[in-house]
Amino acid sequence: SVNPDLASERQTASFSVERLTALLDGGAEQTQIRRAVVEAIESDPVFSRENQYFQTQNERYEAAVRKAVHLQKKMHEMGWTENGPEYKYIYRALSGDVAFLLHRVFMRSISVLGSDKQIAKWIPLATQHKLIGSYAQTELGHGTYLQGLETTAVFDTATQEFILNTPKISAMKWWPGDMGRSATHIVVFAQLYIHGKCYGIHPFIVQIRSLQDHSLCPGITAGDIGPKMNFEHIDNGYLLLKNVRIPRENMLSKFCEVQPDGTYVRQGSQKINYFTMTTVRISLISDEVLTPLMKACTIAIRYSAVRRQSKLKPGEQEAKILDYQTQQEKLLPQLAAAYAFHFINNYLQELFNRGYGEIQRKNFDMLPELHALSSGFKAVITQHCTAGVEICLRACGGHGYSLLSGLPSLYTKILASCIYEGENTILLLQTARFLIKCFMAASAGQPVPPSVTYLAAVKHRKCPAKNKLDFLSPDIYTEAYQHVAVRLTSSTAAKLQDLIQSGVKKHDAWNQCTVQLVQAAKAHCHYIAVKNFAETVEKLETKAGIQKIMKYLCDLFALHGIFSNTGAFLHDGYTSAAQIDMVTASYLDLLAVIRKDAVPLVDAFDFTDKCLNSALGSYDGQVYQRLYEWAQKSPTNQMSPAYERYLKPLLHNTLSKL
Amino acid sequence: SVNPDLASERQTASFSVERLTALLDGGAEQTQIRRAVVEAIESDPVFSRENQYFQTQNERYEAAVRKAVHLQKKMHEMGWTENGPEYKYIYRALSGDVAFLLHRVFMRSISVLGSDKQIAKWIPLATQHKLIGSYAQTELGHGTYLQGLETTAVFDTATQEFILNTPKISAMKWWPGDMGRSATHIVVFAQLYIHGKCYGIHPFIVQIRSLQDHSLCPGITAGDIGPKMNFEHIDNGYLLLKNVRIPRENMLSKFCEVQPDGTYVRQGSQKINYFTMTTVRISLISDEVLTPLMKACTIAIRYSAVRRQSKLKPGEQEAKILDYQTQQEKLLPQLAAAYAFHFINNYLQELFNRGYGEIQRKNFDMLPELHALSSGFKAVITQHCTAGVEICLRACGGHGYSLLSGLPSLYTKILASCIYEGENTILLLQTARFLIKCFMAASAGQPVPPSVTYLAAVKHRKCPAKNKLDFLSPDIYTEAYQHVAVRLTSSTAAKLQDLIQSGVKKHDAWNQCTVQLVQAAKAHCHYIAVKNFAETVEKLETKAGIQKIMKYLCDLFALHGIFSNTGAFLHDGYTSAAQIDMVTASYLDLLAVIRKDAVPLVDAFDFTDKCLNSALGSYDGQVYQRLYEWAQKSPTNQMSPAYERYLKPLLHNTLSKL
Repeated sequence: SVNPDLASERQTASFSVERLTALLDGGAEQTQIRRAVVEAIESDPVFSRENQYFQTQNERYEAAVRKAVHLQKKMHEMGWTENGPEYKYIYRALSGDVAFLLHRVFMRSISVLGSDKQIAKWIPLATQHKLIGSYAQTELGHGTYLQGLETTAVFDTATQEFILNTPKISAMKWWPGDMGRSATHIVVFAQLYIHGKCYGIHPFIVQIRSLQDHSLCPGITAGDIGPKMNFEHIDNGYLLLKNVRIPRENMLSKFCEVQPDGTYVRQGSQKINYFTMTTVRISLISDEVLTPLMKACTIAIRYSAVRRQSKLKPGEQEAKILDYQTQQEKLLPQLAAAYAFHFINNYLQELFNRGYGEIQRKNFDMLPELHALSSGFKAVITQHCTAGVEICLRACGGHGYSLLSGLPSLYTKILASCIYEGENTILLLQTARFLIKCFMAASAGQPVPPSVTYLAAVKHRKCPAKNKLDFLSPDIYTEAYQHVAVRLTSSTAAKLQDLIQSGVKKHDAWNQCTVQLVQAAKAHCHYIAVKNFAETVEKLETKAGIQKIMKYLCDLFALHGIFSNTGAFLHDGYTSAAQIDMVTASYLDLLAVIRKDAVPLVDAFDFTDKCLNSALGSYDGQVYQRLYEWAQKSPTNQMSPAYERYLKPLLHNTLSKL
Repeated sequence: SVNPDLASERQTASFSVERLTALLDGGAEQTQIRRAVVEAIESDPVFSRENQYFQTQNERYEAAVRKAVHLQKKMHEMGWTENGPEYKYIYRALSGDVAFLLHRVFMRSISVLGSDKQIAKWIPLATQHKLIGSYAQTELGHGTYLQGLETTAVFDTATQEFILNTPKISAMKWWPGDMGRSATHIVVFAQLYIHGKCYGIHPFIVQIRSLQDHSLCPGITAGDIGPKMNFEHIDNGYLLLKNVRIPRENMLSKFCEVQPDGTYVRQGSQKINYFTMTTVRISLISDEVLTPLMKACTIAIRYSAVRRQSKLKPGEQEAKILDYQTQQEKLLPQLAAAYAFHFINNYLQELFNRGYGEIQRKNFDMLPELHALSSGFKAVITQHCTAGVEICLRACGGHGYSLLSGLPSLYTKILASCIYEGENTILLLQTARFLIKCFMAASAGQPVPPSVTYLAAVKHRKCPAKNKLDFLSPDIYTEAYQHVAVRLTSSTAAKLQDLIQSGVKKHDAWNQCTVQLVQAAKAHCHYIAVKNFAETVEKLETKAGIQKIMKYLCDLFALHGIFSNTGAFLHDGYTSAAQIDMVTASYLDLLAVIRKDAVPLVDAFDFTDKCLNSALGSYDGQVYQRLYEWAQKSPTNQMSPAYERYLKPLLHNTLSKL
């Protein structure tokens, strides 16, 4: 039975939830396929996540391996293939709680970096799981700056082998997933040396564990790096290499080869490497970042519709906390952001697909723009969504702090996305470098990629809004965002030039501008996100109330951004203080409007209870019952030795009667 | 041996670290006492936290109980008493990792709310640990709003007993620490009924576990609420009461008594109750909030001085990440905030002591101001410090995400402080209510408490700063903060009045202003914090470089606040855009200045390595060695059954040679 406080929220939906779900999925057929996958996964007890919050790191790892192995069987059973339409839904259905994700990265790196012969040898073995692969790039002392990696691979012409070493403790490979306890083979990145000369970083296939008994191979020291904030199911590992010899054929050689006599031959373009990073950054947005935020919104908004606290009107019963303006101000902007980023993800996917097509035709022109957008949006979206999940957690008060709410694990997981696949500040500076370059080019009248042509366009110098309703016009707010992005880019470019002209060295000048460069990169992405949301809404079907509610969310997303960052809009007088007051008024009005549809808007994400795995977020809103039942199953409710050992002696002077 | 990259940071300190430590401690004798306590605790293996990051919730609980019991012995051994000078350092030395904290709350509530007779009976028993106490207020469905609590205590004149019940699942007591597995007696808050009439919430002493064998008493259902984001060492519990009878004497009756015939007698003032909450909110700031931020700063700044990543200047070795402006911009404002809040904590303590003195003299005049300041600062400081710890964590990249860095547990612990002892938004609204009331009074020429007299004062309408150096003048920035606080309070007061005059009901109008009221409350606290920091610096000794470096930190704290929230200062033109650019320039300059003393500034916090419990933050900066050694001890490096069970069968077609 559904909690009546939640049921009533659904009766007044202004739009068709089912249609919105279909829109999010990309069509009703996709929804059907997705639901079939979810059903198949969730009905299989091997994939259950029921005890997840009670498990130790060892138990989580073991369960993830069990699931990974079982998944092979399941796919065969269901007729799912890696190229089939079901595949992309499996990971979401498992909530990522499965091992051997790096096995896929191992395979992809061989496919991309290996010669045809290497692909023919290794890919079938990996596909049939006759080995377990991983990918070892990061070192204890080296992350983002690949040129700084210290692992060495010295070519020995006598034996036609590479000799691999991690010469210092900081050179130890550290973090690779699946490597701590599972992997038998890895792709290792190391500095290639031939006849004493360094040729830079190259990839090598190295066997680290026996296929007979899984013992470590000679010269290999490896293990698990220990407890982390999340990812307990993954055996992130460390690896020391001491004079490990591998055959010459094990250097991945699509682009570079070492010939038997030690001649180094470079062939083809390596630009495609950047494309690989772009691929990864775009692909992680959906599953690793948007899904957690959507889940957090679902949990926090459903809970806020059933939780009652204090009285809003004297004499009435306690109010739903969702009716408080401050609670709406916490949660609804996160909901709007989840939709905004869903649509920008579609935009990036499209751009990516177009770019991939061009690259197939050996045209690399789109790469810089793709790199800048994927870097910037990876940073902006992960940052925004991480903050959003934290807000959802805190908005649920004490119960949000219980692991059983599901929110702590969502937070600790999404937080990692700010760090992995490129640290966010560094990524934003990549975007900023592109922006500055394009701004200079555009200022000089040279052509620039489509996403940055606006940098050269001169528009209004004042925001034309006359009343608060004007700020519900996408043209008005999109232009305000555009103006801010141009201003921050141009003023930082000017500061940079001034510094250089005043004699500061180029690299010092750059460092002295980085705080402001980061601001410019964020403003650029924010502008594109707002513009894309507005354009998407424009094209939506007007039926079933979809366009109307999406328009409200778009407005909220845009106005929340202005409200939270008024200084950027006020700075050069483009927006006046009176206009900022109009923004505030419209923004607060919108909260009350969207609040009415808040529950249907999270229902449209279509997470099952098992997928949410939350005592607060279930579809029926029976929060207290679920918390109590679940808590009783906690291992902390088993007998503890603490009583006999410590409490009994302490209470030794027992009083029969107090 | 100290990492040379860290050693060099210490050689150039502009001030005496030892003197700054003494300043933070409140005198060199205090430093001595604190160090003696730390030494005694850390040399005792029972108190070791070495394996903490590897332990399960059950193991953490057991260790915390063991430590709590051992602490009694230790105190006796060392001659420490609860009233001695050492006492306040014990908790910090233990990093709070100890059980029976609620036992003290149990005792305090009896001391404050109990009659002399009750105090005489229960306090000696509790002091001698002949029982273990806890404090049960929060219910599954009810937190902040005490009037909403559902547990009932019905007086039975026939037996002279109270009959306690938790009539619904939402009435179940939920969260009380030490109650899940340890406590034998608790103070329960319940709605008192006599002859069918409700008299509101009252406190009752209830025995829940046998003193003989620790089994649950008749009518009691209790257990542990399960896994949480942190506080694994605490057995937060649940409790159901079914017709539990307690004698009439067990209602704490300093202020209210039920006479044998059921007559309800109220005696004395209950205002002191508010003072209890004030006490708790102020007392938690130091140990629960500032210490974690100071630890996080120590870890992140030391790590940033030894971690090298990318090149700042071409041709040189990789740069310390602390030399990047973006890294400074992350960490140094947190450091400045730690000092700012340390000094505001001193200010609150003093105010509190004065207030306590007044209350002893039955003068309750200071209570509203104390309540407003303690509520507001509890919210602002916990929020700011929680964000600060998260920034420190993320600034350490991947290694910050390892539990072994110590940062994840600092974050997950400090996060709770935003929720417990009053949810932050609700607290800020309490402060706002006080501000609005005082603003109205001040506007009408009535006297108001000292901390809010500024609301009536009319000062400059424009910031007088003419160049960036002017913004290093405390008068300039303090007045800017004051101006913003007045503007936000007065404009929200005006909005509130407008709404009410236009016919909106008072409670609706209030709700429609809450987002802005929260802003006003924050601005008020921020202003007081800046003003207090500046006044503190003014009074410092000029010797040993202390005043100079504290002045820089004060400037940084103030300018960072303006830089991060420029809209508030630009809004009515008090600060011009050109002046904001001056702020930005001075702010960025300050980062480079303070960076030079960053390591000495965290050294002054004087945390031992054991107390930090961090592979990244140790005094010697041997980060990589420590991470590797520690990871090897992780239980995840013991044999897992996963290989035999899942991997071996998967790899069954073992290939003797690939």
